Amino acid sequence: MCLLLLYRWYRQSQILENTTDKYVFITGCDSGFGNKLAKQLDNRGMKVLAACLTNTGASELKKECSSRLQTVMLDVADSQSVSSAAKWVTSIVADKGLWGLVNNAGILIPMAPNEWLTRADFRKVLDVNLLGMVDVTINLLPLIRKSQGRIVNVSSIAGRVTLCGGGYCLSKYGVEAFSDSLRRELKPFGVKVSIINPDFFRTSILISEVIKARVTDIWKKTASEPKKCLWGKVLSTILWIC
Amino acid sequence: MCLLLLYRWYRQSQILENTTDKYVFITGCDSGFGNKLAKQLDNRGMKVLAACLTNTGASELKKECSSRLQTVMLDVADSQSVSSAAKWVTSIVADKGLWGLVNNAGILIPMAPNEWLTRADFRKVLDVNLLGMVDVTINLLPLIRKSQGRIVNVSSIAGRVTLCGGGYCLSKYGVEAFSDSLRRELKPFGVKVSIINPDFFRTSILISEVIKARVTDIWKKTASEPKKCLWGKVLSTILWIC
Repeated sequence: MCLLLLYRWYRQSQILENTTDKYVFITGCDSGFGNKLAKQLDNRGMKVLAACLTNTGASELKKECSSRLQTVMLDVADSQSVSSAAKWVTSIVADKGLWGLVNNAGILIPMAPNEWLTRADFRKVLDVNLLGMVDVTINLLPLIRKSQGRIVNVSSIAGRVTLCGGGYCLSKYGVEAFSDSLRRELKPFGVKVSIINPDFFRTSILISEVIKARVTDIWKKTASEPKKCLWGKVLSTILWIC
Repeated sequence: MCLLLLYRWYRQSQILENTTDKYVFITGCDSGFGNKLAKQLDNRGMKVLAACLTNTGASELKKECSSRLQTVMLDVADSQSVSSAAKWVTSIVADKGLWGLVNNAGILIPMAPNEWLTRADFRKVLDVNLLGMVDVTINLLPLIRKSQGRIVNVSSIAGRVTLCGGGYCLSKYGVEAFSDSLRRELKPFGVKVSIINPDFFRTSILISEVIKARVTDIWKKTASEPKKCLWGKVLSTILWIC
């Protein structure tokens, strides 16, 4: 009986109170994890501030959620866009602060053997997955500290194991480093920083047709010399994607 | 006697032959590891192609080495500069290929608690330490494959453990990912990829006066609100640097 009460007390202590008062800002809500999370938290009564890359994504999400959920256009690769989204959040949460930030926005492609790619291809992925996350976090930190909130950074299994060429793994390794550094820095302020390392979930990031088309595109652009040498790799890459 | 012969045979097999025929390209030869390595390899009779960021660095190095050593101006953060350095290497090594590439160029600052920094501060470090390495490697890969050479990427202990805020650890985590991916990709072509993870060596990257001045500079630029909250951290940061 005593154990049962202890167990019930423990379970109760794990349930978050006053969820309806809390603001959560989520990036990349057009599809995938961000989209699902926005709907779930809205369903639980939280005040969701959903950042979307496209108007279509935002209006689709609004249709499926309550009027509590608000959306904003955000391209995390663009510093101006991040800055104006942060101002929008500040104007909404005011003195209450931001209870949660979920850095979810990310891209996978261009992805191919490293030699087929250019510096610009690597930069493109790093700009979204790593610098985008850094920028959003730095801009919203004063609001998060105000409410002793929490930050959840969506990393990947590719943040621990290098699975493919291109900028994706590099960016996710960077996410691990950034989150760890941030976690220790914000502990004295009562802010928790967590990471999530999903593996192969069927979100839109893994639509094989899109990846195949992009790899084929990169392959065509690759100069002839590496092409000959890396010929054997084409098959293995295609097989890996399939 | 048999064991002794076996030992001698093993030792002999580990010694590189025909070193005088081999070309090695090293980035960041103005100071630190790159500078030392260029001198050492030149001393052993290898054909060193030393990339320097400054004219002073290049001329100082030339003074201390034989006429075999050749220098080139290279800013790894600039794609144009990387491309023209690669053309210079191609014109020298011709059909012989490049036996070794040492990606050593790197910077540490801006380094400070993450909240004091901007996206541009993170980008600056990533541009040199990570994208610079990627760019140099991709540009020189055809030459390295030609001679079944090797690539040595200088990472850091900060590529395994997050020691400070700012872009440095993020970039070095990325170096680990890039090197691992490259290592597996190039194995079928007989190219070896290695990393080195130095810890706190007294190279110019760790001149404490420079770091202190830069941290103070960033501190002054930081907006007043985070300043108040992060006040306690100043001391710990300064202590850490000292």
